[in-house]
Amino acid sequence: MHVMILGAAGMIGRKLVEKIAREPQALGSAVSRLTLVDAFQPSIPEALRSVTTTLTTDLGRTGVAEKLIETRPDMILHLAAIVSGEAETDFDKGYAVNLDGTRALFDAIRQQGLKSPYVPRVIFASSIAVFGTPFPSVIPDEFFTTPLTSYGTQKAITELLLADYSRRGIFDGIGIRLPTICVRPGAPNKAASGFFSNILREPLVGRQAVLPVNDNVRHWFASPRSAVGFFVHAATLDTSKVGPRRNLTMPGLSALVSEEIEALRRVAGDKAVALIKREPDPVIERIVAGWPTQFDASRASALGFRAETDFDQILQVHVEDELGGRIA
Amino acid sequence: MHVMILGAAGMIGRKLVEKIAREPQALGSAVSRLTLVDAFQPSIPEALRSVTTTLTTDLGRTGVAEKLIETRPDMILHLAAIVSGEAETDFDKGYAVNLDGTRALFDAIRQQGLKSPYVPRVIFASSIAVFGTPFPSVIPDEFFTTPLTSYGTQKAITELLLADYSRRGIFDGIGIRLPTICVRPGAPNKAASGFFSNILREPLVGRQAVLPVNDNVRHWFASPRSAVGFFVHAATLDTSKVGPRRNLTMPGLSALVSEEIEALRRVAGDKAVALIKREPDPVIERIVAGWPTQFDASRASALGFRAETDFDQILQVHVEDELGGRIA
Repeated sequence: MHVMILGAAGMIGRKLVEKIAREPQALGSAVSRLTLVDAFQPSIPEALRSVTTTLTTDLGRTGVAEKLIETRPDMILHLAAIVSGEAETDFDKGYAVNLDGTRALFDAIRQQGLKSPYVPRVIFASSIAVFGTPFPSVIPDEFFTTPLTSYGTQKAITELLLADYSRRGIFDGIGIRLPTICVRPGAPNKAASGFFSNILREPLVGRQAVLPVNDNVRHWFASPRSAVGFFVHAATLDTSKVGPRRNLTMPGLSALVSEEIEALRRVAGDKAVALIKREPDPVIERIVAGWPTQFDASRASALGFRAETDFDQILQVHVEDELGGRIA
Repeated sequence: MHVMILGAAGMIGRKLVEKIAREPQALGSAVSRLTLVDAFQPSIPEALRSVTTTLTTDLGRTGVAEKLIETRPDMILHLAAIVSGEAETDFDKGYAVNLDGTRALFDAIRQQGLKSPYVPRVIFASSIAVFGTPFPSVIPDEFFTTPLTSYGTQKAITELLLADYSRRGIFDGIGIRLPTICVRPGAPNKAASGFFSNILREPLVGRQAVLPVNDNVRHWFASPRSAVGFFVHAATLDTSKVGPRRNLTMPGLSALVSEEIEALRRVAGDKAVALIKREPDPVIERIVAGWPTQFDASRASALGFRAETDFDQILQVHVEDELGGRIA
């Protein structure tokens, strides 16, 4: 099976590649060819060196999608995107990559299929940014998508295209609406959502972290391992069970900041919790107040998608996958 | 005020132009310039001849949108579309006009606005085809859009773009999801929904009409006059009351075929009803079974949009507007 991963240098992309390196049959059948695409140079695990090609390119550029799809991959995992903040500040770039680049990819698949039969599986990383406030405290599967960012708009449009192209049999698509990933590895970044991870990741290695909101803020989480699991599960899913509604809100954990902190205390004690510095930031508080806090992800759950059910599990994943099982 | 109507030769477009001819201030202020655009030659009412320009062109062609918007109309009513059936059979044409043509229009507005301040009102004719079965018997305003046609997909995507461009202040948009228009004037056509109008319009002038479904089929209706009213109301609406959710399901009448027939009987008697020939067509029955039957259009109603509340009113509109107030 020829697998193509777009956005292979990103956090989930890298973990997905590592998963395939550890379990060559993870996506259903053995990977005989792996194409890793990203705007940045993707790294190749040793175990996959002989079957892997990397491509450093920009999906927003004319002709790139056609070139990628000429190789007729059987399975396409599309995680590449201009992120939320940049898509908001750079109108043209966001639409060029997130909408036009993705549509060019879909259309390139269609053109290949017109030449000779070709119906790859396409798994698309969508986002809960397709939803815009106000919403109910628990958002049902049938709630409408009224995004309040250009990023969310581009994701929602791609979801519609994915469903229509799948309905027409052009490809076999699944859209995966990811929860906020926690604990996000790496250095603290400036994303407004960064603190949800920072207040766990940093204290676990003896560093301070800033908490800019109060303890009873609720949000919607899954671990990086669960995120990889969503894509793996989507790769092997019997899509006849999905029907024409191809975009799925993934299961997740609805939890309070205080639950994060108590889980940290159980794992790493009071001294870790003491490293969390409360510095309320009205700007971040306002942004976060506009985010969903909980979903009823019944459809995805019934289809076998799984996430963590408490923050102890999320912390355990982090300790195992990022800290080699040891706490400082 | 410079008003541009795209799709001006279509049924609602023509009636909208006639409305402006009768009531020059219908759209809020006097129309000093009227540009009528369509793939077919639009007709010009005598009263508007001195201010009207017509353009016969194809919105799907490169450069057309830019040329139209160079004239900086203050109010753009966009009713042009490749219809449902054709958008389904001709993939490229449907996407080229309904998605790319409309997006080019929106982007042309953006480009004009980058040159010097320009924020026109844009009113877009959407459709209840943005919804796909299964749905609840009464569809609420917050129900998700999972279209089952490429036409519905293109309308749903345009709705998302309209909301994002409005949120960014590029234009001031309103999306109008029209009910099935009844009584549709003109000759019977092959649209699967045609019979809803045929069984009233034809008997009223002494001609037979075929009813291919049974009497307890329920559907969602508004008269052509109400449809024109929706656009007129949207033109003068205080959009600060609408907020970022710019696409509105219009109010309508949820009625049974039997209610249509009884209204016909009251207006034109048993001899008219006797002209309805029952010829069940399993294909049409199946298509119609996938259509929405009722909406809770609370938001649009609260914003002042109005439609008929029984079929007697719908028939009366037809008799007044199409038959000169007389029944044969």
